Amino acid sequence: MNIAVAQSGGPTCAINASLVGVFREALKTPEIDAVFGSVNGIEGIIKDELVNLKSIITTNEDMELLRQTPSTVLGSCRRKLDENDEETFERIMTCFEKHRIAAFFYIGGNDSMDTVEKLSRYVKKAGKDIKIIGIPKTIDNDLPVTDHTPGFGSAAKYVAATVQEIIRDCSVYSIESVTIIEIMGRNAGWLTASTCVLKANGEEAPHLIYLPEGDFDIERFLEDVRAEQAKHMAVVVAVSEGVTIPEDQLEGSYQNGVTDNFGHKYLSGIGKALETIVRDRIGCKVRSIELNVMQRCSSHICSKTDIDEAEQIGSYAVRAALAGETGKTMVFRRISDIPYVVKIESVDTALVANKEKSLPQAG
Amino acid sequence: MNIAVAQSGGPTCAINASLVGVFREALKTPEIDAVFGSVNGIEGIIKDELVNLKSIITTNEDMELLRQTPSTVLGSCRRKLDENDEETFERIMTCFEKHRIAAFFYIGGNDSMDTVEKLSRYVKKAGKDIKIIGIPKTIDNDLPVTDHTPGFGSAAKYVAATVQEIIRDCSVYSIESVTIIEIMGRNAGWLTASTCVLKANGEEAPHLIYLPEGDFDIERFLEDVRAEQAKHMAVVVAVSEGVTIPEDQLEGSYQNGVTDNFGHKYLSGIGKALETIVRDRIGCKVRSIELNVMQRCSSHICSKTDIDEAEQIGSYAVRAALAGETGKTMVFRRISDIPYVVKIESVDTALVANKEKSLPQAG
Repeated sequence: MNIAVAQSGGPTCAINASLVGVFREALKTPEIDAVFGSVNGIEGIIKDELVNLKSIITTNEDMELLRQTPSTVLGSCRRKLDENDEETFERIMTCFEKHRIAAFFYIGGNDSMDTVEKLSRYVKKAGKDIKIIGIPKTIDNDLPVTDHTPGFGSAAKYVAATVQEIIRDCSVYSIESVTIIEIMGRNAGWLTASTCVLKANGEEAPHLIYLPEGDFDIERFLEDVRAEQAKHMAVVVAVSEGVTIPEDQLEGSYQNGVTDNFGHKYLSGIGKALETIVRDRIGCKVRSIELNVMQRCSSHICSKTDIDEAEQIGSYAVRAALAGETGKTMVFRRISDIPYVVKIESVDTALVANKEKSLPQAG
Repeated sequence: MNIAVAQSGGPTCAINASLVGVFREALKTPEIDAVFGSVNGIEGIIKDELVNLKSIITTNEDMELLRQTPSTVLGSCRRKLDENDEETFERIMTCFEKHRIAAFFYIGGNDSMDTVEKLSRYVKKAGKDIKIIGIPKTIDNDLPVTDHTPGFGSAAKYVAATVQEIIRDCSVYSIESVTIIEIMGRNAGWLTASTCVLKANGEEAPHLIYLPEGDFDIERFLEDVRAEQAKHMAVVVAVSEGVTIPEDQLEGSYQNGVTDNFGHKYLSGIGKALETIVRDRIGCKVRSIELNVMQRCSSHICSKTDIDEAEQIGSYAVRAALAGETGKTMVFRRISDIPYVVKIESVDTALVANKEKSLPQAG
């Protein structure tokens, strides 16, 4: 039998480690012959653009290097399957059968789990014996069921370390300043909340943290900043990209400043918008910093635990398929906090696909 | 005798290492009693705000930690001394004499060397025996005479490593895209040029590099981008913050986009301006990334050579003062490329102050 693996959605530092996990486990499994990599996610299957991974990844050094390379070596896509588009599903089945693919592994986030779900349903309906397994990844940590997602740990490490360095950087002058750091995470505050680990190191900053899970109000924000300015010369604010300014509070300038320059309306412009608000309303020195794609690709400071787990969850996916599972997504279950222990399990993909896990409210 | 040390200008990863160099050398020198740190550069001397470093830095571990901490632990300033402002010079002399300071070490860039120059002239004129020594630092690498500046190596390492990771990140989708990375360096292209080391690693990107040393032209830029798009799906552009669009080529929108949101007219907005130009004129997916202050504070990826050299040049400064030198700036002289060997020397500060070293033209 042959297997195929693909990567989808936004890049992370750990997504290639999961690919290595699938590949290494396949090497150890005598019944698996070829391991195909699908180019650009599910599109490679649809277009029959596959690469034979055994001819590309030939040494342990290749695997070690790939494990630590950010982004998706096989390319990615943002394609969502349409269940009414019978032709596409037929092309997928044709590709699977042509290459005798008995199991397909899809490494991705919420949207990719939707593909796993639809594909496994189609395969069952068609009466074929092809296992479809999802392997989670996203720096946003917003997948339900799983304790956390591969890729989040490295992103959180980058964010926390970099914010601590920025705190040093912005505290050198003896004038009032506000530094606003915009952090990824889409509609979930997990990554921004990771700056809280600095408190455990004795840092007072970031003095203010805004997450998409709460309501944002410009006047309250300005009050918050002024209150911190009474205590600190250099105020540091961490804000999630998903924080939105209520429509009725938007004056033309803030809105323009954001939409003109940043594509998506606010999803990657809240830092710059808050910078403009502070400059206009408080008038002190202010700078906004977007941690940008560095949050998801800074392998030079990746988390070893994250990379190891990402590889492991990939290899467990292969075992699950060999054990006969399909329509499943691999997840971490937390066994113990101290010492940190997680177990890898599989759950029905329907429990994960198209759902978002927000940061829970306190209490 | 006592000595004093201060830090000035923009933060780097190596400026605290130079402080440690001064401090460690002083510890080894029996004739030096107290080592004072001046709070916020020369302002600490003017206002008599000094800290006794021996009571703060008490262990080797303190020194090791400080060596690897970004930014300026003593704070910084951007104050330029005015030679007609006799009162300020008198306050400086009063502080020096009150604390029996026989040597003052100023760690900083071009502007700080101006302070060293003026101060040493004043001291000589006043017939006092106080040694004034400059210790270079700047990520911009734009100081003349010295082979390179402490802080540049770490910044260049951060920039090259991060740009290589961004190249991976932006190459995953099968659609045309342009990624524009804005890199610091003020009016000098050294830091942006450090992305060229990636070519030695076999990277084709960044496909286009724009430095402030050359003339920029919007139409030529668009031609360059289109030519690269004919060869690459994901085009990566590295641009120095100091690159300016000629006034007569600026349409309202680019100018507004930059000035509204980024404070300084273009000095930290060229990336966003080029993003707007590509979106308007080419219309493909485009993203601009500012590496921002992370370039000067990412100690987590600092260069060991840079940190070691920064400490060394600090300790050599103390030796120079003890040998009777004053009005000098410490510099690196390159002895050999392979193996890499530099020698630390001192030169007249007048040769360094208020001058900028650009990247030389080829040939």
